[in-house]
Amino acid sequence: MSGRHYLDHASTSPLRPEAAAAITAWCHRGVTGDPGRPHTEGRIARELVEEARGHVARLLGTRGREIVFTGGGTEAVNWANFGARQGADPAASVVAAAVEHSAVRRSAERLGPVAEWRVDRLGRVDLDHLELLLDASPAPVLVHCQLANHEVGTVQPVAEVVAACRCRGVPVHVDACAAAGQLPLDLGALGAELVSVSAHKLGGPPGIGVLVVRRGTRIAPLLVGGEQERARRAGMENLPGIVGFGALAAALAEPGALELAAATARGQTEALLDAALAVPGVVAYGDVEDRLPNLVCVGVSGVEAEGVVLGLDQAGIAVHSGSACSSEALEPSPVLQAMGVDAERSLRLSVGWSTGAEDVEAFAGRFPVVVSSLRALAG
Amino acid sequence: MSGRHYLDHASTSPLRPEAAAAITAWCHRGVTGDPGRPHTEGRIARELVEEARGHVARLLGTRGREIVFTGGGTEAVNWANFGARQGADPAASVVAAAVEHSAVRRSAERLGPVAEWRVDRLGRVDLDHLELLLDASPAPVLVHCQLANHEVGTVQPVAEVVAACRCRGVPVHVDACAAAGQLPLDLGALGAELVSVSAHKLGGPPGIGVLVVRRGTRIAPLLVGGEQERARRAGMENLPGIVGFGALAAALAEPGALELAAATARGQTEALLDAALAVPGVVAYGDVEDRLPNLVCVGVSGVEAEGVVLGLDQAGIAVHSGSACSSEALEPSPVLQAMGVDAERSLRLSVGWSTGAEDVEAFAGRFPVVVSSLRALAG
Repeated sequence: MSGRHYLDHASTSPLRPEAAAAITAWCHRGVTGDPGRPHTEGRIARELVEEARGHVARLLGTRGREIVFTGGGTEAVNWANFGARQGADPAASVVAAAVEHSAVRRSAERLGPVAEWRVDRLGRVDLDHLELLLDASPAPVLVHCQLANHEVGTVQPVAEVVAACRCRGVPVHVDACAAAGQLPLDLGALGAELVSVSAHKLGGPPGIGVLVVRRGTRIAPLLVGGEQERARRAGMENLPGIVGFGALAAALAEPGALELAAATARGQTEALLDAALAVPGVVAYGDVEDRLPNLVCVGVSGVEAEGVVLGLDQAGIAVHSGSACSSEALEPSPVLQAMGVDAERSLRLSVGWSTGAEDVEAFAGRFPVVVSSLRALAG
Repeated sequence: MSGRHYLDHASTSPLRPEAAAAITAWCHRGVTGDPGRPHTEGRIARELVEEARGHVARLLGTRGREIVFTGGGTEAVNWANFGARQGADPAASVVAAAVEHSAVRRSAERLGPVAEWRVDRLGRVDLDHLELLLDASPAPVLVHCQLANHEVGTVQPVAEVVAACRCRGVPVHVDACAAAGQLPLDLGALGAELVSVSAHKLGGPPGIGVLVVRRGTRIAPLLVGGEQERARRAGMENLPGIVGFGALAAALAEPGALELAAATARGQTEALLDAALAVPGVVAYGDVEDRLPNLVCVGVSGVEAEGVVLGLDQAGIAVHSGSACSSEALEPSPVLQAMGVDAERSLRLSVGWSTGAEDVEAFAGRFPVVVSSLRALAG
């Protein structure tokens, strides 16, 4: 849309041209059959799925056989929690910090006890506390550790977490939905048993994601019926979603592509942060150094974040807030509450592949005006 | 593909032009945001979702508020079984016939006892037996009744089933994945508590479906996290899938559209059945009268169905078989076994929106040759 400046890529990023082209081509290629069928149309569909699987595996630094396509990150996360509970001691806990995504927390909480993992004011998990949690009896059935936080960008010490859990034989689920495609990933080296990724936050279509199931990890399926995905996830494969995800993964897996995108995003978010902090009463939330390159989060004193979101929207700029009124949630962001900061004043600015200098400049020029106007109104 | 004759629409139907146009337009419209966000991009996405929901509701004869988008029919079916078990007596059964889809049976079986509902040789459920099953103590928590069978096409007496269950206060789940878009539906009048539909069998994209949740029916979500779909199904909405499903639903909901398509399909499948039955040793499976208009199923004596499927494929014709080797399943079709017929000899022929007279003629000309050759080889 002309005149608009979209700074909410961390909610969902517009479809990348590579993904758009692949989906459009699929839409117009005529018959593609059910990949589970042995006829020609089925085999063609199967080849499309396996080609895409290879691209996604390469992007994530893992093997194709470890990639299970799901209906998105939320399904992958729900599945990880469901799988961890099958056959487990009902008294055993799942370990999760309050900064995990609501899909992680809610799908864990309804299946059994959750041990709350402490975070600091930057939203980073406490490794000493993890040792205590791992010593619990019965031992935890699963430890959740996001790769990086979706609201403030703080990167977690995932390698250390995986190492600590491996010593005790406790499996780890890494929610990489916010970080995949922003940071280079080598899931083979990381060694987490389960990793969730969604396509739409990195410019793929919504409705497709993966759960990476490490070789040797047994997990009961969440969805049963047909024998798709090696009997790990039933249901006809989402062919347009899979080919779209595959095409963007192929583009991002090109040598240097992620690093270039990250450097550009880092520069843009630093400029956004500078512009925001230049306004009196604005503070940064989360770790402004060791963070995702594509997003920053600030707190704005003296005004409701909802007003800032809507005021910026009227000024042509789309941003996000963890306040209760500014998302589909009924409560202010538990992520920010866990860090001890005020969710009702929070503003998240996130960039992506289509962000240009004009978007950053628009924010820098209009944010001070919107905040001043709202503060004047508030009296 | 030129020279090919696709007679496996009941596995998956090629994308209809209306759906292809809608998805392609979405791919190229630039930013559409997260429908859960209050900014302009989010509101535009929300409008797309709600417009599509209205079209799907009209096609199904229900209200938009009763439509919950899912990642496909399998998710919807798994959800129905999951929801029925929440807070229910663990000793209570779910009632399901062996002719139900594997997603229905498997997701029921792993959550608790399943009471097997008898079917006759046409695959039709036995209403007298249902009365006995409903008298069980504790009462069943859910009765599954497919609208029509996906392998042989037999239409089930769903209205009578719903009426019988309503008297006892037992909820009904109707798997309409095979029948939606083939038979006119008035789910409002039918009154089943839960109905599953997938888009891809009627020419929509794979990866999108709905669970229709009747007004007043409470069901715990299967996927939790965000508050999407009125907090009934978490996860970012599959926008391309939803707009594609909506566009084809709008086309099919036009007055007379379904009736015309059904009449065409009925004529084509009658011609296919006549051609098949003209070959000695071929018999019809299922109810050839009171059936879905778009599919017929036959048994071919003296040859393995797998050979027929592959032989027809080499002759340019794609069909399906319920034999173990011809699908992603490891076992021959339990549907056909329940009817007491030989799954290893079965062949399903199904037509759709893109089927023409030349496809029917190709089958009629080549099927006798393929069968004769195979019998000569076996012989």
